[in-house]
Amino acid sequence: MGNTVRFGISLDERLLDNFDQLIEQKSYMNRSEAIRDLIRASLVEERLGSEDQEAVGTVTLVYNHHVRDLSDKLTEHQHSHHDQIISSLHVHLDAHNCLEVLIIRGAVREIKQIANELIGVKGVKHGKLVMSITGEDL
Amino acid sequence: MGNTVRFGISLDERLLDNFDQLIEQKSYMNRSEAIRDLIRASLVEERLGSEDQEAVGTVTLVYNHHVRDLSDKLTEHQHSHHDQIISSLHVHLDAHNCLEVLIIRGAVREIKQIANELIGVKGVKHGKLVMSITGEDL
Amino acid sequence: MGNTVRFGISLDERLLDNFDQLIEQKSYMNRSEAIRDLIRASLVEERLGSEDQEAVGTVTLVYNHHVRDLSDKLTEHQHSHHDQIISSLHVHLDAHNCLEVLIIRGAVREIKQIANELIGVKGVKHGKLVMSITGEDL
Amino acid sequence: MGNTVRFGISLDERLLDNFDQLIEQKSYMNRSEAIRDLIRASLVEERLGSEDQEAVGTVTLVYNHHVRDLSDKLTEHQHSHHDQIISSLHVHLDAHNCLEVLIIRGAVREIKQIANELIGVKGVKHGKLVMSITGEDL
Repeated sequence: MGNTVRFGISLDERLLDNFDQLIEQKSYMNRSEAIRDLIRASLVEERLGSEDQEAVGTVTLVYNHHVRDLSDKLTEHQHSHHDQIISSLHVHLDAHNCLEVLIIRGAVREIKQIANELIGVKGVKHGKLVMSITGEDL
Repeated sequence: MGNTVRFGISLDERLLDNFDQLIEQKSYMNRSEAIRDLIRASLVEERLGSEDQEAVGTVTLVYNHHVRDLSDKLTEHQHSHHDQIISSLHVHLDAHNCLEVLIIRGAVREIKQIANELIGVKGVKHGKLVMSITGEDL
Repeated sequence: MGNTVRFGISLDERLLDNFDQLIEQKSYMNRSEAIRDLIRASLVEERLGSEDQEAVGTVTLVYNHHVRDLSDKLTEHQHSHHDQIISSLHVHLDAHNCLEVLIIRGAVREIKQIANELIGVKGVKHGKLVMSITGEDL
Repeated sequence: MGNTVRFGISLDERLLDNFDQLIEQKSYMNRSEAIRDLIRASLVEERLGSEDQEAVGTVTLVYNHHVRDLSDKLTEHQHSHHDQIISSLHVHLDAHNCLEVLIIRGAVREIKQIANELIGVKGVKHGKLVMSITGEDL
């Protein structure tokens, strides 16, 4: 990390009162920390808008493990993208349903494509992709 | 509006450099204005999470005006919710397609229900709802 | 519109039961209409992912009209983009607050830039952009 | 799973052509599978709108592991919610940054609260929550 700098911002006191309540509700320690998070989140969203941005994606899949060949297919997909899919986590939700989380690194474009492939596998009930950036400069 | 108060926040200078670039790109006049917008946006999202929150919704509908009875049906829906739908704007997109924007006031729950009804009308190709709050205290 | 075609889809009857409930709740007339809307929405989202896509945007701004020069600034912005901002709608929310909706046509990239400029104007409390496409082929 | 049922839907052939392209691009095996996913996604979103809905959340955190006490604090948070946080996955992104994914089960309200606490921990640069439901009936 670089040097810490400090600057002042001005705002309406009613807005600040409301923000202080939100900060408490969200368990932030202080305003600086909460504002830094808002700033970082806005930068992350901006950058993820570019398809070439290097990013890291978390794909959450919910599926029924009784579906024939499903686990094999998911494993196969993961191995065919072993450069991008760097890790996975498996949770047994109930007697039938599993949740699998996969971490994918690469350009935004690649991450989306791999996530689509995984979500599209027959038997996967529901899938969602969320992306972040590793951002040394955040 | 209430009184203006001022306070300091500290952050890493690289994060600030990046934020300053984003501010310029988004045409903000200064950091305070950009941060106030992030704060207000976070408060708006928080409040809209409650179904009882009084809000204002903008529904954007795209439809083909050649579909039989569609305009009449949309007008009928609007009149049956005349207490909530306060205004509308119509744009002729091309020879076939229209865009209609409707402003709805009410509780989040009501706004969603009315928007769903409008988007569900046969012939409406695509619809989206976006909500804000009037927020005297923002 | 082109010809209407028909095809069959198969799904678990419990999933269908749940979908039928959602359809009723969302006021759709029948399954075909609801599924067409899901299909169109997925196509719209896909296309809006491309910055060059021709689209139409609805920008919703909430602002306090007592802020000095704000109305003038907003009007100026609109005129400097008169080729893209094709229409606007103004609503008096209460004694102090206004809602203004602007319709912008252009490439996704342009629409985002103009929306950012408008939301960044000092005094605009909150703004949101939502985009659709005119989609002759939807 | 229950019985499989079959029904027909009708739509404009140009819309279907476009959808077939999207299906191929998203690697779906056939239309039924793609439409089932759209239906399930719409049901999941609907249900997640209710704060009492039982759900499963994936929280993705990016943080700098050099921040003093951060790992300890995150571990502490996880233990204080050991009934809800059922599993976690850690990835070393680079020399400084870590990505941690936590799986949280509970009501939507609880999941959001725990995710907010984790994202608000000082030193966590960026965090995102995504939720799904275990949905035996999906």
